[in-house]
Amino acid sequence: MSPQQRRSGLGTNQEAIRRHNLGTVLRHVHGAGQTSRAELTSLMGLNRSTIAGLVSELESLGITEHATPLEGSRQGAGRPSARVRIAREGPYVIAVDLGVDRAVVARVGLGGHVIQRAHAPVLRDGEAWQVGAAVAALIRTVVEDAPSAAPLVGIGISVPGLVRRSDGLIRLAPNLEWHDVSFGGIVLAALGLDVPVSLANDADLGALAEHTRGAGVAVDELIYVSGNVGVGAGVISGGHRLEGVGGYAGEVGHLRFNPDGRPCHCGNLGCWETEVGAYAIAEAIQCPPDKVAQLDEVLDEFDRPSTALRATGTALGQGLASIVNMFNPQVVVLGGYFRSLYRLVGADVDAGLADRALPAPLESVRLELPGLGSDSPLHGAAEIALEPLFVDPVAALGTALVDVRARLAG
Amino acid sequence: MSPQQRRSGLGTNQEAIRRHNLGTVLRHVHGAGQTSRAELTSLMGLNRSTIAGLVSELESLGITEHATPLEGSRQGAGRPSARVRIAREGPYVIAVDLGVDRAVVARVGLGGHVIQRAHAPVLRDGEAWQVGAAVAALIRTVVEDAPSAAPLVGIGISVPGLVRRSDGLIRLAPNLEWHDVSFGGIVLAALGLDVPVSLANDADLGALAEHTRGAGVAVDELIYVSGNVGVGAGVISGGHRLEGVGGYAGEVGHLRFNPDGRPCHCGNLGCWETEVGAYAIAEAIQCPPDKVAQLDEVLDEFDRPSTALRATGTALGQGLASIVNMFNPQVVVLGGYFRSLYRLVGADVDAGLADRALPAPLESVRLELPGLGSDSPLHGAAEIALEPLFVDPVAALGTALVDVRARLAG
Repeated sequence: MSPQQRRSGLGTNQEAIRRHNLGTVLRHVHGAGQTSRAELTSLMGLNRSTIAGLVSELESLGITEHATPLEGSRQGAGRPSARVRIAREGPYVIAVDLGVDRAVVARVGLGGHVIQRAHAPVLRDGEAWQVGAAVAALIRTVVEDAPSAAPLVGIGISVPGLVRRSDGLIRLAPNLEWHDVSFGGIVLAALGLDVPVSLANDADLGALAEHTRGAGVAVDELIYVSGNVGVGAGVISGGHRLEGVGGYAGEVGHLRFNPDGRPCHCGNLGCWETEVGAYAIAEAIQCPPDKVAQLDEVLDEFDRPSTALRATGTALGQGLASIVNMFNPQVVVLGGYFRSLYRLVGADVDAGLADRALPAPLESVRLELPGLGSDSPLHGAAEIALEPLFVDPVAALGTALVDVRARLAG
Repeated sequence: MSPQQRRSGLGTNQEAIRRHNLGTVLRHVHGAGQTSRAELTSLMGLNRSTIAGLVSELESLGITEHATPLEGSRQGAGRPSARVRIAREGPYVIAVDLGVDRAVVARVGLGGHVIQRAHAPVLRDGEAWQVGAAVAALIRTVVEDAPSAAPLVGIGISVPGLVRRSDGLIRLAPNLEWHDVSFGGIVLAALGLDVPVSLANDADLGALAEHTRGAGVAVDELIYVSGNVGVGAGVISGGHRLEGVGGYAGEVGHLRFNPDGRPCHCGNLGCWETEVGAYAIAEAIQCPPDKVAQLDEVLDEFDRPSTALRATGTALGQGLASIVNMFNPQVVVLGGYFRSLYRLVGADVDAGLADRALPAPLESVRLELPGLGSDSPLHGAAEIALEPLFVDPVAALGTALVDVRARLAG
């Protein structure tokens, strides 16, 4: 070792680099579901023996396992490269998609594999502790069959509102009427567990999930627009989440749209979400407000859209034009009720967009339905809970919990 | 060298790392104007002898020079660290701020030092080759006194329109009525020079300049809103320019604002720029349209704003609210005519913003006037022309031109 290396403490750096590489190998396996040592060698630009060492460490940690090479996977004259796949009883996370009307909870393994799921209605005007207790009950359900040796790495929660990046505080979930709620702490208290918990906005998580394993894999300029009771956007730019200084970026639902329009909960008139959100869609199809939670099913029964619904489609396209002018994305993914709406009135959405977007950003954008259906925010919640494993698997397993079912029973 | 290093061709990497470090040293000196080897050592985390070697190479390239240590700069018991400053006759760039009414051209050295500048009116409805010839004449003026040994690294041009990132083509400069104009090539042809030329949108360059040496140094979530005949925004997020897939991000001027409003050149009614752009401001103060180029001077003569001007201020704040909700910035810099407008009706702008922005993003944002006055886009144009020097100074000097005045005369 040179004096320079000694002075800079290179030993520490090499350990940091090794853990980073370990996490990066895992991120590749997680993204691909299954891969080979040869693919990892070529993807990561490291030599074969380094990759073999990293893979063997992941195996000894119980995160990945060895799989028999596929028939016909032989390349050239050598023997087929050893396969690497996610371990069956390896680490998992709990993903929570907290909606205005219902909560979905899933146990999710690496590779984005949903192992078990459960859902329950969320009471309108329910207090945060009541909703927290309901979510905790769903979590108990989905860990019921988890192998006792499998470590729970953390809990990720998708929230229909503004979440402060620094500590996950829900600053505002307007349609739940929550202000400054520490929902992560409430859920942990209801469970009696101490495990890392991460929260983020539902549209941000939709964008993350669609970018990782949905309609926008390898698309570095992607926007996920979430159409629910509220409307929001998650933005991936340059391959990274656009968060803003506090984590609140993407509040497109309050774009000024119709200054003489309906009152919005934010105090203004005619915000875009009052023209295209769930209640506006329900009004356009004369669906009673108490059936808004079933809006997807109701929309899927339509085959000839009404004039009012087509106008809602036009308004969706016109608002998307502002987003396209603002962010110049390559792909806009239409999530939430916009999926069903776009299937019915896609031509009107496209026309509204073409009418209002500038030609240069318009020519490179395409609208897509979510590759993960209605589960994008749920998958995004799993991704943020898994993230520590990709930063440093050893440290993440150090804070993970085993025997979760027994701890919950106690 | 280990077999592994040989296989990976580490020699090449070390040369790449050395050039990267050389550029990074230069970026620090450029940012600070003047620094010391001790500061560079601590900023870059490299050891003293490596820094000394890099600084000495920059000196031998004629980019920086040695300066006498300042009196009183002694730290501890040792002798004061050697100062490093930009060489007086070192490399320079030409920065062009192409406006709708006039062009400003400057010779700019490292450190953002404007050495010489010139300006001329731009003819409305002028064809691109006419404007190119006028810009070329201004460039001839500002290089008149350049030392013949000083290398011209490149030309940077700020454009009031949409610029394609891949090749600098002006896709649309609506208020010049230009479509798909290769203005960089036109200027080079008019000069008879072959030197790197970079073009970008004026608001994007305003954001870059304010982030580098203006009101937003060390602010990683910054938006520069340019209020001229057109209105646009440049966005810095996570410390990097938000460009979008083609380079067109930030077209906030076409946010839907007043669906019953004035016709916009984009074909829609009531885009935000029709309510707050130069012509709307002129109308509010009953300034004749042919005096719009002097709007700053006209505004500066006002002391009691009219009701109409206050309404324009409110509309500015209300539109800024959409930007704040969308991007959650820490600082919004008001450029162009918005500087003078904000001085007059700042309270109305603030009220319009507070009225429409969501509380969470509102609480962390502040509005600022540009630290660089009306020169932010000009400085941004210098920055993009200088950029190759920070990536690889040796390569950038390889494509630079010396004896520029003689070449122009020939």
